This record gives sequence, structure tokens and C-alpha cells, in this order.
Amino acid sequence: MTRAGDLTTPVLLADVGVLDANVATMSAARPGPALRPHVKAFKCTALAARLAEAGHTGFCCATVREMEGMAAAGLGADLLLANEIVDPRAAGRLGALVAAGARVTVAVDSSETIAVAAAAGIGEVLVDVDVGMPRCGCDPADAGRLADEARSAGLTVRGVMGYEGHLQHVADADERRSRTARSMAVLADAHAVVGGDVVSGGGTGTWDCNDVVTELQAGSFVLMDGDYARLGLPFAEGLVLLTTAVSVRPGRHAALDGGLKALAMDSGDPRLVDDPSLAAGVGEVLFCSDEHTTVAGGSWSVGDRVGLRPAHIDPTIAKHEVLHLVDDVRAGGDAEVLESWPVDLRGW
Amino acid sequence: MTRAGDLTTPVLLADVGVLDANVATMSAARPGPALRPHVKAFKCTALAARLAEAGHTGFCCATVREMEGMAAAGLGADLLLANEIVDPRAAGRLGALVAAGARVTVAVDSSETIAVAAAAGIGEVLVDVDVGMPRCGCDPADAGRLADEARSAGLTVRGVMGYEGHLQHVADADERRSRTARSMAVLADAHAVVGGDVVSGGGTGTWDCNDVVTELQAGSFVLMDGDYARLGLPFAEGLVLLTTAVSVRPGRHAALDGGLKALAMDSGDPRLVDDPSLAAGVGEVLFCSDEHTTVAGGSWSVGDRVGLRPAHIDPTIAKHEVLHLVDDVRAGGDAEVLESWPVDLRGW
Repeated sequence: MTRAGDLTTPVLLADVGVLDANVATMSAARPGPALRPHVKAFKCTALAARLAEAGHTGFCCATVREMEGMAAAGLGADLLLANEIVDPRAAGRLGALVAAGARVTVAVDSSETIAVAAAAGIGEVLVDVDVGMPRCGCDPADAGRLADEARSAGLTVRGVMGYEGHLQHVADADERRSRTARSMAVLADAHAVVGGDVVSGGGTGTWDCNDVVTELQAGSFVLMDGDYARLGLPFAEGLVLLTTAVSVRPGRHAALDGGLKALAMDSGDPRLVDDPSLAAGVGEVLFCSDEHTTVAGGSWSVGDRVGLRPAHIDPTIAKHEVLHLVDDVRAGGDAEVLESWPVDLRGW
Repeated sequence: MTRAGDLTTPVLLADVGVLDANVATMSAARPGPALRPHVKAFKCTALAARLAEAGHTGFCCATVREMEGMAAAGLGADLLLANEIVDPRAAGRLGALVAAGARVTVAVDSSETIAVAAAAGIGEVLVDVDVGMPRCGCDPADAGRLADEARSAGLTVRGVMGYEGHLQHVADADERRSRTARSMAVLADAHAVVGGDVVSGGGTGTWDCNDVVTELQAGSFVLMDGDYARLGLPFAEGLVLLTTAVSVRPGRHAALDGGLKALAMDSGDPRLVDDPSLAAGVGEVLFCSDEHTTVAGGSWSVGDRVGLRPAHIDPTIAKHEVLHLVDDVRAGGDAEVLESWPVDLRGW
């Protein structure tokens, strides 16, 4: 048996019980194809396979590399690239997946992206509609014209997508619900013009208040993070960066051997796991540097294993080569390692 | 000939002229062994080899993986792990490098780290002294005792190290100089007690005001970043994330296909390269999401190559598999790719 304490730190651990419970909660509300899990959240085909076993066999990707990796892992039954492709070579890589038997759908929001998809042999598209987040997506008024253009180019238009990313972290549940309804009304109107069976969108934050989408593009719910934890959703945090205290100044601070190269910082500092079995004392994070996190207010000894909960899981996992599934992440170094999953969808 | 525009975006480009000029400036002030380049800044043995050609053959590392990669690349003449090792297996990996002929020195700041180094066959150490940054390093009052303890354990004590990381980004040059002098006085006192030939410390921010160290542990100067650029040092920014505009809402915003998974966010948002040849217009960064950066205030077309300058180079490079050396980073997609360097020192 391998214990987490046998692994070289810093190392990422995922709690099997939390993962399974989060998936069960989501699957009950969004069964089968009503959930299109977003693999950008975890970049790991082994974790995706677990979602497929739970009945969610259509997946959402953000990069061509994710699409390729999913197809190579036999998870290419229905892959959506929820992103725009302009580079003909990148589109050609998707065309090769289609030729090899994967089902590939891409988002289009311009004449250019339609032309590239058609030329590359990607047969199916969704019209991506701007539903209020300034990123990708066409002017809603252009959705019908783009659908016509795509069909004229020989593409099958499966429907629409629109991501209300700007609403995922709205703290007040009522406000999140009402703003999501307004945002999704835009998507519903576009869908009425575009046609097709698919209305794709949503995420972990709007999992229970997006009543328009036929498929929810959620991913972070599987292991959650500090950012989403503030919303009080019925999903628990299951990801921990296990570190070792490599330098201790008693009564002052300790330096842990995992820093901002092992943790995403876009949503702020990590938090110490507050389970007393994991460290000798509970304290607070002072700051992260490249390879260290300095903590204070607790009591640590050199060599202690100390767990940190990341503020944002997606880019945290993307910094690691392996994600270890353990029986109880709160057990720290004593946790049993059940499986070690390559983070095999990194890069572009 | 390969152009940067032939590469799949997002992709990291380094400017050969800027790199060489930065190295020349630093080498003139800190020739040969007076500079111990810190490979954590770039995690790339090909770039390290360029520094070795400039006469800097002793290197500084932050992780065991960096030490292993440098030794494997034939750059193991004098490797310092400027970090504490507690895990006997990690120390064993360093001992294996010694057995294979590399010169390995590690930082120690406690009885535990001394014992681990001695047991692993790592023959040489520096006593790491806390010079004011709350991270690693012993109480200065303990430096002599630890040196004695290390010698009793059979280790050769080459000297001391102390990193004034908290002063690297002090904006006012006079304040930076005076505070560095006070911080380094602590290190000099410790050195007087510990002995040895080496006084190691410093970084890019204190390159011209740290008069105590015998070797400067600078790394970021090679390509600089937004963080360090604010100090007005005589080193130029030479790193650019080249992206493609994949979605454009004229007069509103554009979405570039590189985001926070391709850019470190610990020091804030990237900036647009302000060279008019690189994009149709100069604008500003609104925000980064996982795989996109939304920009506004400029004029872009779908398919434009757009360059972003990262706020912090070390963790930005660590997110990429390859760093491409180009003739002129401001030329964007038209830049000629001279060499493609694997970022081969990632992970732990």
C-alpha cells in the first residue's frame, strides 16, 4: 500500500469520497447528457472516465490538446470544443479526430471560424452567443445569420452555446438566479432563430439556476475550490496540495515546500486544511513564493506534512503531472493512495 | 525558415537580442563565478548553457528536478540547491548526482536538514540564514552552531547564503540599497562566524546594491517581466506570449487564445506588447480567464497575432513545454524562430 507520505512533495491529492459524492449530487440533478462535464477543470482522462461511468459521455473541452487526449482515451463519443478555432492547422487536428471516428463539435461565432471548421472537415458546430461575458460569442443579433452561413458551408448546426461565466461567482443566490435567467433569455432567443437540439452553457455556479440549457458545461464541481466554496453549493472541496514543512522558526513561521508554481494564484492564496490530524496546529497562510508557502500562527515541526487547499482548481491541476486519488485527503501523509492519474490533457 | 506565426498559439517567445544584452550587462558587473544564475527563473537547460558560455558555470536551483536536469545536461560543475531538503528520498536523488560526478551543495538551516544531507552523501552545504524574509533560513544567532554541527556530521561548510527576497521589488532605489545593506550585514556577521569562501544571495532587484555576496543568485534579469520592469533596471523585457485573436466584437473587445493557464497571475495581469507592428492597435487587458485574455481599446481582426508581456516570468515559463528563441519578439507572427528550447526543468 502506498501512503501519501511516501510521495515526493509538493503533490496533489484528490479525495475519492468527496469526488464521488460531488458527482452523485450533480448526476442526480443533471443526469446523463444533461451534464456535459468540462474537462478543462481537471485535464485528466482518468477522472473523465469516472464521469463517463456515471453516465456523462459527452464532454466539453477548451483546447485542441484536450480534444485529442479525450479521443485517444476512447472518450470521443461526443466532444464539444467550447472555444473558437481560427488556425487552420489547429482545425486540421480536429478534422483528423473526426476522420478517426470521434464526434467533434466546435463553437463558431464569426465567418472566419465557420470557414475554418468547414475547410477542416469538422462537420458539426454550435453558434456561440455572447450572453453578457466579454469574451467569445457573437452579437446575439448575428446568430441566425451565422447559422445560415454555417449551413451554407455544409456544416450541421447542432444548436447554440453561451457561457454566463461572469455570473458563476455571484455570491448572492437570488441575484445569481435572476441574472442567469436574463442572460439565458438571450441564449433562448438566439436558439429560437438558430434551431437545433442543443442549448449548451452554464457551470458549477449556476448548476441549479440555469433552466435554459439542455446540457450544463460544469467541471469544477468535481473537486471544488476556495473560489466556489464561498457560494455554499452542495459540493465539497476535495483537492489538496500536500507539502512538507522544510524550515521552521518556532513561534514565527514555517516554510512549506509548495508555492505558486504548484498552486494557481489568480484567485488568491491557498488555505491551510483545517483538519487537526494533518498538521500540528492550524494557522494561516502569509504568502506564496515560487516554491514555498509561508505559514504562521500554528505549530509545525520540520518534516511535517501540511495540506493546502487551492483557491482555483483548474489552473492548479494544470501545473501538475499527476493527481493522486486518496481515501481521505484530510489524513495528509497517512492517506492511502488508491490510484495515480496522469494529468494528461495539459498544453495546447 | 520557421516564423512565429507558424507555431500553434498560445506560445512563448524569447527575444535573442534582449537576452544577449541582458546577459552582457549582468556579466560585465558580475563576471564568471560572481554570478550564480538561478535556473528557477527559466527552467531551461538550453538557456542555462548560454549563461555557461558567458562564463557563469555555477548555477542555483530551487528544486531537486532542476538539479537533476542540470546535471543530466552536463551543467553540473557547481550546482547549489538554494532550498532545504527534509525528505531522505529527495536527498538521495541529490546523493546520486554526487555519485555520478556532479558537484552538489545544499542549503541547511536546521539539525534535520544537516542530518538528511549527511546521510544522503551530499558532501557540501551552505548555512542558510534568515536575513529578514520570513521563509527559509536559520535564526542568525544559530548559524555558528549549525556550521559546527554540519562539520561534525562530516559535511564541508562552504559558507553562508541568505536571500533578501523581500527587498527585490522595493521601488525606491535608495531605500532598496539601504535596506539591502542592513539585511546583508546580518549575513556578513553570520559568515564571520561560519567561515568558508562563499557568501551567496541577492537577485535581479539587488544586482547593483548587494555588496556583500560573493555570488549573486539572479535569474529573472535574463528576460525580465512586468514586476521587475517597474524598477528601471538596465535589463529589458524579452519574453512574450504570442496569442491569436479568436473572437472579435468590433468596438467592444477581443478574446485572445492565451489565458491564465499560459500566464502566471501572481503579479497581476499581462500587458499588451506596445509595438504597433504586432497588432492592429494598442489597447489594454481587461481580464484573463483559463484559456483567454480579453482585451479592449484597440482594433483587432479575427486571426491577428497579438503579444502579451507576462507580469512574472518564472511561473509563466513553468507553464510551457517549449520556449522559442526569436530574432525580434516585437515582430509577432513575423519573427523568425532561431531555436526551440524545451522547458525541461519543470516539476519536482
